[in-house]
Amino acid sequence: MEFKILARDGRTWARRGEIITLRGVVRTPVFMPVATRAAIRALGLRELEEIGFDIILSNTYHLHLRPGAAVLEKAGGLHGFMNWTRPILTDSGGFQVFSLSSLRKLYDHGVEFRSHIDGSSHLFTPRAVLDIQRVIGSDIMMVLDHCAEYPVSESEAGQAVERTVAWAADSYGYWRERFDAERQALFAIVQGSVFANLRTECADRLCEMDFPGFAIGGLSVGEPKELYREMTAVTLSRLPEEKPRYMMGVGSPLEILDAIELGVDMFDCVMPTRIARNGTLYTSSGRVNIKAARYEEDFGPLDARCSCYVCRNFSRAYLRHLFRAGEIAALIYNTYHNLFFMKNFMNQIRSSIDTGNFPETARRWRSAFEAD
Amino acid sequence: MEFKILARDGRTWARRGEIITLRGVVRTPVFMPVATRAAIRALGLRELEEIGFDIILSNTYHLHLRPGAAVLEKAGGLHGFMNWTRPILTDSGGFQVFSLSSLRKLYDHGVEFRSHIDGSSHLFTPRAVLDIQRVIGSDIMMVLDHCAEYPVSESEAGQAVERTVAWAADSYGYWRERFDAERQALFAIVQGSVFANLRTECADRLCEMDFPGFAIGGLSVGEPKELYREMTAVTLSRLPEEKPRYMMGVGSPLEILDAIELGVDMFDCVMPTRIARNGTLYTSSGRVNIKAARYEEDFGPLDARCSCYVCRNFSRAYLRHLFRAGEIAALIYNTYHNLFFMKNFMNQIRSSIDTGNFPETARRWRSAFEAD
Repeated sequence: MEFKILARDGRTWARRGEIITLRGVVRTPVFMPVATRAAIRALGLRELEEIGFDIILSNTYHLHLRPGAAVLEKAGGLHGFMNWTRPILTDSGGFQVFSLSSLRKLYDHGVEFRSHIDGSSHLFTPRAVLDIQRVIGSDIMMVLDHCAEYPVSESEAGQAVERTVAWAADSYGYWRERFDAERQALFAIVQGSVFANLRTECADRLCEMDFPGFAIGGLSVGEPKELYREMTAVTLSRLPEEKPRYMMGVGSPLEILDAIELGVDMFDCVMPTRIARNGTLYTSSGRVNIKAARYEEDFGPLDARCSCYVCRNFSRAYLRHLFRAGEIAALIYNTYHNLFFMKNFMNQIRSSIDTGNFPETARRWRSAFEAD
Repeated sequence: MEFKILARDGRTWARRGEIITLRGVVRTPVFMPVATRAAIRALGLRELEEIGFDIILSNTYHLHLRPGAAVLEKAGGLHGFMNWTRPILTDSGGFQVFSLSSLRKLYDHGVEFRSHIDGSSHLFTPRAVLDIQRVIGSDIMMVLDHCAEYPVSESEAGQAVERTVAWAADSYGYWRERFDAERQALFAIVQGSVFANLRTECADRLCEMDFPGFAIGGLSVGEPKELYREMTAVTLSRLPEEKPRYMMGVGSPLEILDAIELGVDMFDCVMPTRIARNGTLYTSSGRVNIKAARYEEDFGPLDARCSCYVCRNFSRAYLRHLFRAGEIAALIYNTYHNLFFMKNFMNQIRSSIDTGNFPETARRWRSAFEAD
């Protein structure tokens, strides 16, 4: 994996780059749609290819539980299994273990948990999650981290940082020794909750190791907006300029704009697809609640400025009808549109960095989405 | 609307024809997928167009309740609303009123019922359902009929026939007087439950009117297979050879084969899409239950002889995983495949009638589906 910075905004910390993997180039800043269980919810593979994402994200935790590494290995990894040929990034499962599973037991060497599906017992260690990601065949793997809940005391957040750093060191050594680093990159994850000193310490200690990229974990979990920006800025100030920075699990257009402005390159989030399934759609003039009665006889497109399949073919009235009737087609069309929106949103941001107009572009998007 | 018979099997009553409408040609025997609420469940419009159906069916009852005639009228009818340009046939709502709605009151002039959605009260008369279908813009409309439950006494079935014939006569007159018959055809529906004398009487009395086509209603509702065939044969023997015959709400590949053999031209059924959503898939060698454990590590296509998008791109193991994981993509892919199967099944039947091999083709399909 290689990372090149091709342009800088100059007025902000925003930058335009490319992550070059053996499976293709990822143009940054990038939004990665989430294929939790080897599929994007409510979307077929063809639609995903058509929208044109450079990279998708999938979840080690979910894939480990189902279909399991044995099936994935025989399928030729996740790429073969789901027939996706471009890059894949996988989360390590840390976040899911700490948020989804029950009866969690934390040890220095790893975390034991029960599956949220069938209650079976599993142990994730830094090396075990790398072994699973090896089978998955992720182009970018993530280290196992300890993602503390929010809110959390400083002392507990400090312990989570200690564990995160220790696990990252073990992961780094194991990766260097046993992986084809060219084929499968490994990113570390900075924790530290909303404590600037912990974020700084965690970033500094992780940066002593030569990870190909760094992620910011544990943000956008309910903290005030100001803390989100402050923690992002503090963390980024300690991360190496020449390596990609990935803000995990974020987010809304506004959160993404804030983070890009501070120098973040990568994002993933289920929000665009989740809210789509609830009838909330992103448009060039902000959010639209397609369930609203005012669209009953609105035969115009959802977004006249959008060139996606849905906006070219269906009216707001029809989309509203499908949603109210409980049709699966509503989920398909809404998901398609919101992901197309995200792709186009990131395209515009990248172009604006190239042409020196990022602050104006960001301001325009902010005014559309803050007006909500 | 015009109907041409282009070929006859000779050894059976099967025939190959074309229904020519202003919106396109419908090659018969035809299977019409069901877009109950202005969408095929779990399928986008593009996939429907790609599979290549000549005609789809939609339901007057459901469309009347939601989005309602006012919205459809402003949308330019159902074609404009859902952006489907080929022919549409609409059921009259008779079947749904008798099977879905509550607090039904039957009068000589029509049937009053409460919506299954919000309990609101509605009256369907022969003329009212035609008025709704005029707004929908159906290329083929159906008359309001009285669809008796099964099982039913002969006397009750006889009363339903009386009402069906009287309503058909009223519908016929209204259609002749007030509709553009070239643009919107009207089919009558033969009732009579499993009583040969009633089926005969109903067919004979309906045939006194010059309807462009005739349907068989109230079959495949739980009666023994032998009665299904007998009633089909009895009814068809009274229907004019030169007009299209439509078996409503049928069915499985075996039921369709039986009916084609007896001279039926048109079919509609939710079965292929409904069973798809339950994980049952049609293949060239019969039904496949994709949930089965034996497909866990089966990386071959669902049906090696099928050329559909799903069979060309995904394995049985992946389809099983998606289904078990509760992914919406499972519903999309399964639905796509089963409808592609139905289209291809009907294509093969039509070709075999052209080339004089229908009985052999039917035998081959029967052995695949009876072996289940």
